[in-house]
Parts: sequence; C-alpha cells; structure tokens
Amino acid sequence: MKEIYLDNSATTKVFPEIAELMTKIYTEDYGNPSSMHNKGVAAEKYIKEARQQIAGTLKVKEGEIIFTSCGTESDNMALFGAAHALKRKGDHIITTKVEHPAVLRCMEALEKEGYRITYIGTDKYGVISLDELKEAICEDTILVSIMHVNNEIGSVMPIAEAGALIKSIDKNIIFHVDAVQSYGKFRIFPKKMNIDMLSVSGHKIHGPKGIGFLYIDEKVRIAPLILGGGQQNNMRSGTENVAGIAAIGLASKMMYQNLDEDVSRMYELKKHLIEGLTEVEGVSINGNEGAPHVISVSVKDVRAEVLLHALEDKGVYISAGSACSTHKKAVSETLKSIGLDKSLLGSTVRFSLSVLTTKEEIDEAIAAFKETVPILRRYVPK
Amino acid sequence: MKEIYLDNSATTKVFPEIAELMTKIYTEDYGNPSSMHNKGVAAEKYIKEARQQIAGTLKVKEGEIIFTSCGTESDNMALFGAAHALKRKGDHIITTKVEHPAVLRCMEALEKEGYRITYIGTDKYGVISLDELKEAICEDTILVSIMHVNNEIGSVMPIAEAGALIKSIDKNIIFHVDAVQSYGKFRIFPKKMNIDMLSVSGHKIHGPKGIGFLYIDEKVRIAPLILGGGQQNNMRSGTENVAGIAAIGLASKMMYQNLDEDVSRMYELKKHLIEGLTEVEGVSINGNEGAPHVISVSVKDVRAEVLLHALEDKGVYISAGSACSTHKKAVSETLKSIGLDKSLLGSTVRFSLSVLTTKEEIDEAIAAFKETVPILRRYVPK
Repeated sequence: MKEIYLDNSATTKVFPEIAELMTKIYTEDYGNPSSMHNKGVAAEKYIKEARQQIAGTLKVKEGEIIFTSCGTESDNMALFGAAHALKRKGDHIITTKVEHPAVLRCMEALEKEGYRITYIGTDKYGVISLDELKEAICEDTILVSIMHVNNEIGSVMPIAEAGALIKSIDKNIIFHVDAVQSYGKFRIFPKKMNIDMLSVSGHKIHGPKGIGFLYIDEKVRIAPLILGGGQQNNMRSGTENVAGIAAIGLASKMMYQNLDEDVSRMYELKKHLIEGLTEVEGVSINGNEGAPHVISVSVKDVRAEVLLHALEDKGVYISAGSACSTHKKAVSETLKSIGLDKSLLGSTVRFSLSVLTTKEEIDEAIAAFKETVPILRRYVPK
Repeated sequence: MKEIYLDNSATTKVFPEIAELMTKIYTEDYGNPSSMHNKGVAAEKYIKEARQQIAGTLKVKEGEIIFTSCGTESDNMALFGAAHALKRKGDHIITTKVEHPAVLRCMEALEKEGYRITYIGTDKYGVISLDELKEAICEDTILVSIMHVNNEIGSVMPIAEAGALIKSIDKNIIFHVDAVQSYGKFRIFPKKMNIDMLSVSGHKIHGPKGIGFLYIDEKVRIAPLILGGGQQNNMRSGTENVAGIAAIGLASKMMYQNLDEDVSRMYELKKHLIEGLTEVEGVSINGNEGAPHVISVSVKDVRAEVLLHALEDKGVYISAGSACSTHKKAVSETLKSIGLDKSLLGSTVRFSLSVLTTKEEIDEAIAAFKETVPILRRYVPK
C-alpha cells in the first residue's frame, strides 16, 4: 500500500542525500573532532561547514551556533541557562500557555526553584497579544520565551514585534524563541528580530533525530547544561555528533535553497486540503492561515484516535494531538486556549505537510477522509 | 596511503551493518515513536529491541536502560541526578583523581553547589586502593563514582570489589561506574557487582556518535536532566534518536557476540605491539596489563605531538593524551597520579586498538614507530 505521510510536524523523512552523507561519515570520516590527526581535522571540517550553513540561513556568526542532541535539549539549555545566569537580576519569567512541553516542563521546574512565571494566553486563532505581553513585563523580568509556530494548530506568533517590544522596555531581558516548528519554513533573522536564543531540531527539517542546535547571541552569557571535555567552547561537552551535525547543516541549507517556492506550494496544498476536508459536514479548521505545513481539523462526532487509525488503514498517516509527548491523554492546552468547544477536544486531528508532499497525496488523503468520516459517524452513540 | 587507525579509545569506525541499519531507519522507518500510527509503532520496536540487546549483555531489566546523547550526558545525568536526589541524606561524594573530564567537571560544579568531594588517588599502575576508598566513606557519603577503565592508560579499577565494599558499609550509597572505555571489552553485571548506575557511549563500540545510555537500577530514583515531552518514562525527554538507539543496541550485541575470542586476540596484539615498541631505546609502557585495547607509551626525548604527526605522515593514527577533551594542553591528571617522571609528561602517546585491528596493522605501526623515533630524536635540543 502506498504511504501518504502527513505527520511531518511529528517528524520528517531524512533526505536521501543526507542519509548518504551520514553513512560516509560513519564509515570513512569517523574521526573524533578532538583528535589532533587528519581524521580529527576532517571531522572538525564537517562541523565548521555545518555552522556556516546554519549561520548563513540566520545571518548570524558561526560561533553563535551550539549543537545539541535535540530541540528539547536546546530549550532546556536556553531556559535553565538564562534563568540561572540572571538570578541576581530578577526572578520573573514570561512564556505562553501554548508552548511545547519542552518549554512548559522547564518553567514548572524553574517555578519550584523559586522563579515566578507568567503564562500569557492566546486569541481564538492561537496567537498571543502583544498588549498582554507588555503588561506582563515588570522590573524583575529576566527572560521571555515564545514559540514561533505552534505545533498543534500552526499559529504564528508575532516574534519580531514581541522582540522589539521586549527590548524597548528593557534591553537586558533575554528573548528565547522555540523555532522547532518554524525553522526551514520561515526566514528568521535573530539580529533584526531581537531574538537572543533560538531552538531548532534536526528531525523536523528532514535531518535525523538526535541533533538540534541553539543559537545564542554572542553577547548573552548562559551556563552550560552538560559539562565535561569542554567541546563547543565549553558550552556543550561530549564528543560532537559529527554525522548529525553535518546532517542538520545540509538540511538547513536545503530547506532554505528554494524556500519561497517551497512555502507557496505548501500553502497551496494546505488550502487545497482544507477545501477538500471541509466539504464534509461538521468539519472545522482551527487557527487562521498560520504556518504552511500544519492543519488542525476538528471532526464533529468522531474520536480523533479512531479517525487516525481508520485513515492509517488507508495508508494515510496523521496525528491526534501533537505526538511530541508520549501517548498521554492530557487535554491540549492549545485547544483549550483557543476556546475550542469541549465536544471537539477529543475530535481534533492534525495533518502536517512537508516539502516532499505532493498534490496527488493530498487528493488521496481527502478521498480517504471523505470515505472514512461518514462510516465512523454511523457508530457514534447518540 | 593505507590508514592504520589506532585511536579507537577516542572513537571507532561504525560497523557497516550498523550504518546500513541507520540508513534504513532514516529513509524508511523514520516515524516518531510517540506517533500512534504504524510508523510510530515501527520506531518504538527498534527502541524495544535495542533495550533488549543491551539489557541482555548486562543481565538487567529493559526498563533500567535510559538512552542519552553520549557518555558525557550519561555521566552528568547520573551525578547531578543522584546528588540532587540525595541532598537531604548527605553532602559527601567520592570519586577518583583520574576520572574523565565528564565526571571531574560535574564534581567541581557540585562542589560549588555545596557538596564535599573526596578524590582518591591511584598507585603507579593507575589503580585505586580499596583501603583508601574505605577510609573515605563516611556517614554523609551519598555517592561514589569510579571509572572502570582509564581512558589514558587503560588501567582497570576493581569495581566489583569497590561495589561490595561500599554496600557493606552503607547500602544506600549510590555507586556509579563510568564504563565508557570498558563496555564491550569486559563483562559487566551491575546486579552482581553492586553497581547502581553505569554510563556507556555508542561511538566507542563501533556505533555512531550522538548516542549513549545510562543504566539505572530500578530501585534508584534520580532527577532527570532534560525535561519535556516525558519520553523514556519521564527520565529523558526529547524525541528518541531511533537510529542511534538501534545502532547502540546492535553494536552492544555485536561486541558481546564473540567477546572472549575478540578480547584475547586484542591482548595478544597489545602484547605484540608492546614488544615491538619497547625494542626502541628509551621507550616505556605506562600501567600494568590493564585493558585489552589501550597502550600508553612514553618516548624519551620525543614530544608527543611531533611523534603523532610523524606517524600520521605514515598513515598511523594515534593520540597524544586522551583526545576526549578539546585540544587542551593541560597536564594529564592520570599521568601525574601514576607518578610519571616529569620529563615524560609531554612525551606520552596512546595507541588504542579495536576488534577490527589486525596483526598486519600492528606490524606496520611498529615499523613506522621504529623508523620515526630515531629521526625525531636527532632534532632534540640537548
């Protein structure tokens, strides 16, 4: 059976040229970058090239990119690192109610350490209000963390405006952006947007799992999360994941090579998908236009998991909830924050596209959806 | 030019079957283990199999294996996790002077947090004394961390005896072993040896960089280092590095498949190498018989870096110092601890073997060494 993979916000297929590059590194250029001989030098070259590739997409300096093992580690490093480094300056942190658990769980831990956290809400499209952000900022505020694109409904936060606002009030407040769902789909220029730290994950942009990076502005000093041999200028110890680093470098380059074209094609596919899905009665789309790749769909009288498995039987892979946390049944903070009708909380699924998604796949997904939903509704206990 | 890679304690070549397995996962079985559909289930199966493979080599339960991004993260997680969890019980920690920086830097950070650290020394072979360990243990001791095999000279610590001793004094003291250099060369049975936590790295056993694991006895409760989506039973959040996990599982299985045979062949090669190298005047071997793969060699009147690069010109790759930390010129704590003559501290190199090393390679390395050392000595300023 043909596979139609529409769960790209959970993870993406590794581009074949990236898998090939990694194999070469695993079996030929396998040196330790800390080794003084040629094999170490060759390994270090891959790291330097990846830094260049990534720094180029963000228009930042190579030395401002720290490689981590995943987006979650990037978030942990950024939040604990900044909070601990600025402890003397203040104890107040601002974030949103709809962040990824990688941010929310750190905030809860920081709260236990004695920091005060303000969680700002969103409108019915899942977008924060700059007025609420402005009101939340106080003298003790040391850190603001706002995601760029929400992983559940694809809402796009006004990060450039938020950055300008924060810095206009107090330029010493650190601004962190979780860009795991946006990097590779949006142009992000930290220097221009007043972003001090930016978290990115490799496996959301057709790189492998197990690699991520954190951009840290050179003027910002944070404490490292993992200590040891002093790799990466003491900011992240442990032998560098050379293959993963080369992979995320190449993935970054590839994602930005034809960005405008890729993104407008994805927006068209998204529009086409929405048109098809909403032809079925009782189907509604959450959020506004949002990001090009995420489509949150509520299907009246159908349980999300049941729909997911029924579509899976037809080779169409989607997600119920965000799939970024383990099989938990917790109610989505994002869906609550946009005021979704209670009856639809358990009836909401996510389709997510990638640059590899084709119109044919979308057509087949729509057909499968149209065929499936009426059948599932027959069995709904009234 | 033929490459003779004798820097396997720095890192190893990935076995081709492991690279192949990873490519399959990157391009076909690329699902997110947290996804509810088939592609998620397939990814989770790889993780389950890897846990079984690893747990089998250690004779522990699958649920006691937590995957991390490297040996360094495993050490950080173990040490900070245990120290913080046991803070109320006491503030005293014991380790050795010759640990890897991944342990030593954590100890320094814990010292700043208010813990008291006792560093025990070694004899002239780089082995700790159980009497010194016994004397160091006091009422406030909560944690002991001892490496199994030293990365610079290959000395083997009496971990089973240390475990028995520690638990005979106070069974609540947590015993952590950094097994990065020993796993895959020694049979390690944590339950029998009274080891509560054990750190292992993938790239030292012909797996990739960017993956490691921490064994944690199910009776031991420690705080996680990285928070988020709750993966791995909340102990290590972040989308699992499925390919890396499958790789370290297969590597573990492969390393233990013919362990006795492989290890005795490596001991023979080590003996052969030592005999060859010491035929050159002014060449001495540090440590005792030790581990099968590490040979520390002091070469009078020759600078380590110069020898390293001269051998590199002949295709022989070795290490000056441990190569696990970045190009630092710090004097080795291990070489100081064994009382090495000061004049030899900068003249010590490390050869390290793997299961792939052949007798022909050792012969060529010996020939290159014999040819090179007398030439280098001609230029020594007297």
